[in-house]
Amino acid sequence: MLRESGTSDFASDRREIWRANEFLAELRRQTTDLPGVTRASYGDGEQTAHDMARAWAKELDLSIDTDFAGNLYMTLAGRDRGLPRIVMGSHMDSVPHGGNYDGAAGVVAGLTALQRMRRIGMTPRMDVTVMAIRAEEVSWFPAPYIGSRAAFGILPAKVLDDVVRFDTGQTLATHMAQLGYDPESIRTGKRYLDPAGIRAYIEVHIEQGPQLVQSKQRCAVVTRIRGNYRYKHCRVLGEYAHAGAVPRADRRDALLAAVEFVRALDAMWMRRESTGGDLVCTVGQFYTDPAVHTITKIPGEVRFTMDFRSDDEAMLAACHSELEAHAARISRERNVSIELGERTHAPVAVMDEALIRLAQRCSKNLAINAPLMASGAGHDCAIFAKQGVPSAMIFIRNFHSSHNPKEEMALEDFAEATRVLDAILEELVA
Amino acid sequence: MLRESGTSDFASDRREIWRANEFLAELRRQTTDLPGVTRASYGDGEQTAHDMARAWAKELDLSIDTDFAGNLYMTLAGRDRGLPRIVMGSHMDSVPHGGNYDGAAGVVAGLTALQRMRRIGMTPRMDVTVMAIRAEEVSWFPAPYIGSRAAFGILPAKVLDDVVRFDTGQTLATHMAQLGYDPESIRTGKRYLDPAGIRAYIEVHIEQGPQLVQSKQRCAVVTRIRGNYRYKHCRVLGEYAHAGAVPRADRRDALLAAVEFVRALDAMWMRRESTGGDLVCTVGQFYTDPAVHTITKIPGEVRFTMDFRSDDEAMLAACHSELEAHAARISRERNVSIELGERTHAPVAVMDEALIRLAQRCSKNLAINAPLMASGAGHDCAIFAKQGVPSAMIFIRNFHSSHNPKEEMALEDFAEATRVLDAILEELVA
Repeated sequence: MLRESGTSDFASDRREIWRANEFLAELRRQTTDLPGVTRASYGDGEQTAHDMARAWAKELDLSIDTDFAGNLYMTLAGRDRGLPRIVMGSHMDSVPHGGNYDGAAGVVAGLTALQRMRRIGMTPRMDVTVMAIRAEEVSWFPAPYIGSRAAFGILPAKVLDDVVRFDTGQTLATHMAQLGYDPESIRTGKRYLDPAGIRAYIEVHIEQGPQLVQSKQRCAVVTRIRGNYRYKHCRVLGEYAHAGAVPRADRRDALLAAVEFVRALDAMWMRRESTGGDLVCTVGQFYTDPAVHTITKIPGEVRFTMDFRSDDEAMLAACHSELEAHAARISRERNVSIELGERTHAPVAVMDEALIRLAQRCSKNLAINAPLMASGAGHDCAIFAKQGVPSAMIFIRNFHSSHNPKEEMALEDFAEATRVLDAILEELVA
Repeated sequence: MLRESGTSDFASDRREIWRANEFLAELRRQTTDLPGVTRASYGDGEQTAHDMARAWAKELDLSIDTDFAGNLYMTLAGRDRGLPRIVMGSHMDSVPHGGNYDGAAGVVAGLTALQRMRRIGMTPRMDVTVMAIRAEEVSWFPAPYIGSRAAFGILPAKVLDDVVRFDTGQTLATHMAQLGYDPESIRTGKRYLDPAGIRAYIEVHIEQGPQLVQSKQRCAVVTRIRGNYRYKHCRVLGEYAHAGAVPRADRRDALLAAVEFVRALDAMWMRRESTGGDLVCTVGQFYTDPAVHTITKIPGEVRFTMDFRSDDEAMLAACHSELEAHAARISRERNVSIELGERTHAPVAVMDEALIRLAQRCSKNLAINAPLMASGAGHDCAIFAKQGVPSAMIFIRNFHSSHNPKEEMALEDFAEATRVLDAILEELVA
C-alpha cells in the first residue's frame, strides 16, 4: 500500500518536492555569504529561515507557535488533540560560511510531509508538528543544543549569561531578548515541551560523513548518536628558552611534549579501531602562543582541544583514563605539565528500536535500500532521546561533508528520504 | 706576568668593573619595558645603548665613527695605524622584553678593556676598536646579522626593501634612513670593513644555555658556532571536515599528519644525539588556522617552523634529507601535502685555532678554569669568521637562559671574563 501511495501519486509527490526545492533555493539566495551561506544562531540568517518556514506554514494553514527560546512549532491538528503528538524537526542555523542543507533540509522535509497530508486530505489521529529549532551549531555560542534544551527546560541558567556569541561578544540572553524572546523563562527552568506529550520525534538530516556516498545509497536509518568527551582547554606548560643554546636534556619543550601526547592519542585510536571499537578522535585546535612564539625560541606553552566520540560509553571512559595516564607519563618524562582541563560529556543517544524497525519496514516496502548507520555527529535528536522521547533519524546522502560551502544534497535523494518519512507518518498517525 | 698584572692592580681593575656595572644598570634603567628591557633594532632602545656607548668612548677620548648602517666604532689608536686592527664587538639590540646582558655585555667588556689600557697608559701596537653592532636579533626584522653583514658589504639589497620590522611594518631601509644612515651604500654592496684589515675579532657574550651554570664555571672559550637550517614556512594541507561524521580512513587530517612529522623529527634527533652527533631541533611555531579552527572540525591546514643546528655541516644536510623523506612518506600515507617550504642555511663557523689556544693559555695563567664549548646560538662573530677574520668568543656564565627578562649575569663572572680578555689583548697588541 505504501508502495502504491508512493508511486500512484508520483506526479503529485513531485509538487511537494518542487516546493521544497524552491524553498531551499530561496533560502540559499537570502542567506548567501560567499563562500557558502551564513545563518547565525539568533542572528539574521537564522531569522530569515524561520520567517520563510512560518510563511510556508501559513500557506498550509497550520497553527503556528513559538516558545520562549524562539523555537518555531508548525502544527497540523489531529483528530484527537489530547493524544501525544508527533514532532518532526531540525535546526535552521548554519556554521559561518556553511552549506545550505545542514539542518534546514530536516525542517523542509517536515513541511513537505505536512503539505502532502494537506493535499491528500489526510487528517492525522494526533497533532503532527514541524519544529524549527534554534541554535544547534556550537560555532556561534560555544554551547550545544541551545534551542532543544531550552524547550525541555534543561538549559542551565548560567549558559544564558556566561556564553557569548563569538562575533558580537553579546550574551545568549541578550540575543534572545533582542529578538523578543524570554530568557527569564529559561532561567526559571520552565519547560515548553513535555516528553510525555510526544509520541515520537523524527529528524531528517543530511549525513555529515561520506558513508552513503561511498555505498551509493540515498538514505539511511540511524541507530544511535555517538556520545563524546570534549576538552576545550588542554594546555602544556614547559619553559621558553633559546632554540640554539639549550641542550636536549635541559629543555622543557611544550611543543614536543604536546606532539608526543597527540601522537599517543592517534596510536590509541588506531589500536582501538583495529580491534573493532567505534571511535573518532579530533584535535581541532592546536597552537603555540602567537604573542610570543618565534622560530628561534623553544615553546613554553601549547594549547589544544580534543574531541573524541564513540557509540560505546565504556570506550569513552577508557579513552579518558588512557589519555590521563599518557599525560602524566609525558609530563614526568619531559619535565612539563600537561593539563587536560575541563571536560564535557554528551552521552551516547540510542534511537527507538520500534521506530528503527518501522523505518526499515517502510523503506523496504518502497524498495529503498536504506542501511542502518550510527551518527558520528551530534543532533538535537539526542536531546529528545535523552528526555525519553522515542526518537528516530533519517540521513540523506550528502557530498563533500558538511559545515562547508561545498556540502551538496541531490534533490532526488531528498525526495527518496521524504517518501520514507511519509510512509512512517502514515503508520504512526493512522 | 699576566698573572701579576691581573692581581697587582686588583683595586684598579675594580674601577673598570664598577664603571661597567654602572653602565649596565643605567642602560637597564633607560630601556626598561616591563617585564625586562626592550631595545628594538634601529629603534629607541638600541639607539639609547649606542648613545651611551658613544658617551663613554668620548670620556675615554677614543676616535668615534659610524658606518652607513649605523654600526658604531670606538677606536684607541695604535702605534702603527697601518697595521690590521683588533676589533672587539657585539650587538646592543635586545629581543622584545629581553634581558639586559645579551649583546650589551660584549660591548661593555670591550670598553672596559680600553678604559683599562687608558688607565695603565698602554698604547697598543695596532688600532683596537670596540664595535657596537646594529640589529643582531632576528625578532625585529626577520633577517639575521643585519649590522655585521652590512659592514662587510654582504647584506643582500633585497633585505633592505623586503624585510619589515614586525611592530612598525616599515622596511629596513626606511628605518635606517630615519636614523640618518645610508641604505643606498648597502644597496651598492659597498663595504666598510675589509677582512684583510682586521687582525682578530673577539666577541664576549653571555652564554645563552645552561652549561656553565651546570658546571659551575664563570666563563668559556668558544670553539665553533653551530650552523643551522631554518624553515619559516612549513605547511601541511589536508581537508577540513566534520569531527564526528568522517571515519578515520576518509580523513585528511593536517594536524595528525603534522604531529607525526614532528614526532619523526624528535625521534631523529634522539637517535642522532645518542650516537654522539651534535644536534638541537626546535619547532618554535606550530598552529592550526585561528580564523577557521574549532574543536569540532578536522583541521585542514597546519603551519609550523623548524630550526635545527649542529656544529657538523654533514649532519645538517643529512637531517634535511631524512626530514624530506618523512614528509613524502607521511603525505602519501595520510593523503595530505607536507611542504617544508623555503630554507635558509647558516654554515658552521669555526673559531680561529691560534686565538683559542691563546685564550686557553691566558685563562690558565690567570688560574681561571675556562672550558672549551661550542656555541649553540648564532652570533655576529660567525659573520667575521666566514669573512676570513681570525675570530674568537668568550662566553660568560648566565642564569635562566637568554631572550627573557630573567637572564642574569653576575658581576664577578663578567669581571673574570674581562681579565681573560685583557690578557688576550696584551698578547695581541704587544
